[in-house]
Amino acid sequence: MERLTAKNNEKIKSAVAVRDSVKVRRESGLFFLEGARLCADAAENGVTVCRAFLTAKALEKYSSYAEKIIASAQEAYEISEEISGKLSDTQNPQGIFCLCKAEGKNAQTAEIKADGKYIFLENVQDPSNLGAVSRTAEALGIDGIFVCGGCDIYNPKALRASMGSALRIPVYSCENAVELIENLNKKGMLTLASTPDSSAELITDVDMSGGVVSVIGNEGNGITSETMSACKKKVTIPMGGRAESLNASTAAAILIWEMVRK
Amino acid sequence: MERLTAKNNEKIKSAVAVRDSVKVRRESGLFFLEGARLCADAAENGVTVCRAFLTAKALEKYSSYAEKIIASAQEAYEISEEISGKLSDTQNPQGIFCLCKAEGKNAQTAEIKADGKYIFLENVQDPSNLGAVSRTAEALGIDGIFVCGGCDIYNPKALRASMGSALRIPVYSCENAVELIENLNKKGMLTLASTPDSSAELITDVDMSGGVVSVIGNEGNGITSETMSACKKKVTIPMGGRAESLNASTAAAILIWEMVRK
Repeated sequence: MERLTAKNNEKIKSAVAVRDSVKVRRESGLFFLEGARLCADAAENGVTVCRAFLTAKALEKYSSYAEKIIASAQEAYEISEEISGKLSDTQNPQGIFCLCKAEGKNAQTAEIKADGKYIFLENVQDPSNLGAVSRTAEALGIDGIFVCGGCDIYNPKALRASMGSALRIPVYSCENAVELIENLNKKGMLTLASTPDSSAELITDVDMSGGVVSVIGNEGNGITSETMSACKKKVTIPMGGRAESLNASTAAAILIWEMVRK
Repeated sequence: MERLTAKNNEKIKSAVAVRDSVKVRRESGLFFLEGARLCADAAENGVTVCRAFLTAKALEKYSSYAEKIIASAQEAYEISEEISGKLSDTQNPQGIFCLCKAEGKNAQTAEIKADGKYIFLENVQDPSNLGAVSRTAEALGIDGIFVCGGCDIYNPKALRASMGSALRIPVYSCENAVELIENLNKKGMLTLASTPDSSAELITDVDMSGGVVSVIGNEGNGITSETMSACKKKVTIPMGGRAESLNASTAAAILIWEMVRK
């Protein structure tokens, strides 16, 4: 395995750029992963690992993870502790990092189950919310996640918060939310726009037995008015309390739960 | 208003100690708040504000919040920008801080509604989980939160994550979880121990029409075996997916939702 020692090595510089910039992630179609478990999970779940970076210590300490990662990686490099510190976003780096290919499926061309249950994120910004939603979506076993607008599901913080679930559950990305909603409506699916507006239909009154897509909007501004109009129904989670609204990932959790609740 | 300028002023040093140490919070019975809205919320909700610290800029920029805080505070001080930087835990401090009295009610002596809905946190460690649970509890309108074991609900990060809801919803603290559960059982309340163990009763099969107390355990270890045995039932959230378990605050959100769901 080739050993990289210079912190300004081009491969290290480009990995840092992918880690830090949503623009670079979008343009390169790559994303950055940190951590033994997360990188091994990616490798095992068919994610294309373009480059793996591992310290000598990590090769020893996390040998079973490291083997899987190296076996699946197109290129693997041993790195110094100093480079590991530069690549790491965490206080106690494990010394394992990967640069992977973002292969989110195109929502308009991918096969969507007309009787499936999906969550649809429009402009959700907070990486910890993105991560929490994909963790809940996987745990409760829905069929996939649509991401539209500025949802950066490959943000390193989102991936860590998701415990890697975004790499295991189908993620479908789209450019135009309204077009996608209209297509899902045509398939006979029930598209639901969630809103804190208490005049909307209570989610407990909605028949969710068929295919359902629940849309969650931006933390501050909610769902865009165009997307809101394109959805078949506006729904709300009845709130008895005094807080202004539920956190976006909590609202998503309750919607996902209602979709799968027997 | 007296002006403090020395960073090593005793009042500033003790505020920092309360902010940073759970031990100091417990022993002094005080907690630390940062932010215009959060401090004003506390003042308006009957929290005893022992000391308020405000920068000249904050007095001007957040004048309506500042007025409420100063009116309710036992002591109020103008502080320099430098001290504000020292007191702040955030990147862009608003320059408003309070030292408040933690008046969590004693769970064994406080009045608990026998037909109410409560969440019970045992050894929940992560401040963002503590904050998220109290935000959800308030939004969905349950009757209160029990905190047992090491739950530090007055941690500054927990209070920020809760958007101050922990200051508005009744919080009951207890030393001995088992004794408390036994008392709640005697009142005729249904005490539920949540577990990822799929052999437990599904929460959707439980009659939650009367008084219910749902217990959430530590993120890594779950509910202690003593508390588990003291509860009337073990319940689980059916999971269809592959993730190991739901995040503690997501599991709490689904339990709270099931308690209030019509």
